[in-house]
Amino acid sequence: MRFVHATLPQRIRFASGAAAAGVRAEVERLDARRVMVIAADAERVLADEIVADLPVALRHDEVLMHVPVDVAERARAAAAAHEADVIVSIGGGSTTGLAKAVALTTGLPIVAVPTTYAGSEATDVWGLTENSVKTTGRDPRVLPVAIVYDTSLTLTLPVELSVASGLNALAHCVDSLWAPRADPINAALAVEGVRALNLGLPGVARNPSGLDGRERALYGAYLSAVAFASAGSGLHHKICHVLGGMYNLPHAQTHAVVLPYVLAFNAPNAPDADRRLAEVFGAGNGLAGLQALRATLDAPTALRDYGFAEADLPDAVEAVLKSVPEDNPTKATADNLAVMLHAAWEGSEPA
Amino acid sequence: MRFVHATLPQRIRFASGAAAAGVRAEVERLDARRVMVIAADAERVLADEIVADLPVALRHDEVLMHVPVDVAERARAAAAAHEADVIVSIGGGSTTGLAKAVALTTGLPIVAVPTTYAGSEATDVWGLTENSVKTTGRDPRVLPVAIVYDTSLTLTLPVELSVASGLNALAHCVDSLWAPRADPINAALAVEGVRALNLGLPGVARNPSGLDGRERALYGAYLSAVAFASAGSGLHHKICHVLGGMYNLPHAQTHAVVLPYVLAFNAPNAPDADRRLAEVFGAGNGLAGLQALRATLDAPTALRDYGFAEADLPDAVEAVLKSVPEDNPTKATADNLAVMLHAAWEGSEPA
Repeated sequence: MRFVHATLPQRIRFASGAAAAGVRAEVERLDARRVMVIAADAERVLADEIVADLPVALRHDEVLMHVPVDVAERARAAAAAHEADVIVSIGGGSTTGLAKAVALTTGLPIVAVPTTYAGSEATDVWGLTENSVKTTGRDPRVLPVAIVYDTSLTLTLPVELSVASGLNALAHCVDSLWAPRADPINAALAVEGVRALNLGLPGVARNPSGLDGRERALYGAYLSAVAFASAGSGLHHKICHVLGGMYNLPHAQTHAVVLPYVLAFNAPNAPDADRRLAEVFGAGNGLAGLQALRATLDAPTALRDYGFAEADLPDAVEAVLKSVPEDNPTKATADNLAVMLHAAWEGSEPA
Repeated sequence: MRFVHATLPQRIRFASGAAAAGVRAEVERLDARRVMVIAADAERVLADEIVADLPVALRHDEVLMHVPVDVAERARAAAAAHEADVIVSIGGGSTTGLAKAVALTTGLPIVAVPTTYAGSEATDVWGLTENSVKTTGRDPRVLPVAIVYDTSLTLTLPVELSVASGLNALAHCVDSLWAPRADPINAALAVEGVRALNLGLPGVARNPSGLDGRERALYGAYLSAVAFASAGSGLHHKICHVLGGMYNLPHAQTHAVVLPYVLAFNAPNAPDADRRLAEVFGAGNGLAGLQALRATLDAPTALRDYGFAEADLPDAVEAVLKSVPEDNPTKATADNLAVMLHAAWEGSEPA
């Protein structure tokens, strides 16, 4: 047992229907007087309720995917102009991402109120995009000091998106088990994340307007982000990153399709990970458990359904091969990656 | 699902035989130049090796149990006189405790090198004793910034003490499942702690000079401390605290005896906790799993073996009743506590 693990400081509030009270408590705790509220137009009504009793200095609603640099600059200038002393961000990954971009240069603390399963609120990773190139980094200043989880805010997330996003979170958990900085603490959190998602996502699919499944899914998404941020990107994320970048495939669906193939690829050489997944899924092995869950959720099965062409396979294999983490359990070769990606392209049984 | 959880910032290094390198890395990371080394006389030789390459400003070896205030004052004065900028503490709970007492007033960062399963290194709890009265509190300044776990340093811990101390750690885990601030994150860490201790402690007993069992036990003790510090004292710890204080019973042994009785008492009204314990022990229920582990370890079974008299029972029941946490799963009464404590006194089957 050899590892170095950094536990990041964060307060986590979890209570359905209590976002306003939770945010107020955290803002007071920071002794903050001038709140910058970041929420996209789509979240305006939610945000209105949450910030009604706060000392709001400004509202900012220019939120774009991947945080373009000019968008970040405008938000930073607005924070400075209004002398904000805390950021309350209400929304999904893009909203949290903008808050992080402001915190990165201003050092303002963030209270994050997530409305999706993106998980960015639980990591110290920031990202900015300029001329279509995304730069990412890690900085303690961008880690929200507090997260206020209110499951009722996720009720409007459509089922299909919830499932895809939840499977993305599940992929964070599974990939954490063999990622470059995998360690036993990450594994414990990741396995707990799998437990929560495996119970929660079928509940979301069955009853999208019920809180029970969504609570577990949101909690699982939180754990997946903590484990993933600490463990780093494993083979699964490298593959999805390469495919997403080269062929503009949809993020969550790509993750949902690829995961079982990576699990089948790595499991024979990651027996501990597979045993723990089997245990928590209550299945004979990790793959059987994952596939049972996917079947329940009617999850995406083939990359060809999302714009990936058979003719793209050779280039994809070559690109993936370059990005395979050094210590991946199963040694990747052009041959075995080609077999895996072909299977993921056509949606055949992972093996 | 409703909770507020505070994750505390800490770096955890885990590598057998690598204490010196780990401490050096952490001291350099802090950019510290004047190290105060706290290590009792019993750890002098260990400490010599660990600090050989450090910029040591002073060594301090006056370490006493329960951190008497005058001992703390002398350590604080020494730190100031030598202009220390970091504390490296090498030892068990008393040593870590003294380092915390210095950090509490000076704000000096601590790099902790534990040599037992006490777990104090992973908490923000400090304690000081004056005129036989122990005062405790929580303060972010006393949380070590880094822990350097080197299992080889625990090899000299005698088996009997290792087992008692390990069962104490196990009690932290189990009690966390229903303690006042119990939450799902604590539970995940606690259950992982049970897993590690259940695998590790029999290994320690079988082969005390082997690293494998001791690594798991030390890792489990770390997790138990994290979960316990966050969740607070449940019924088990309240009972042990009362009995220990009133009748001067030995700490670790008292915990080892009492735990199965509390588990039997609470399990019927804490089905989730019991199911998770059953799962991780691989047993029909939590109690069966715990008792199987205790049998393997030849664990202490009766309080009467440690100086607790049958005549003390009525007073003990009265005192325990006053300290039962409000939301304990099973409502405690004078009657059911009397039955429980009588059974723990005589060592009969918990039920």
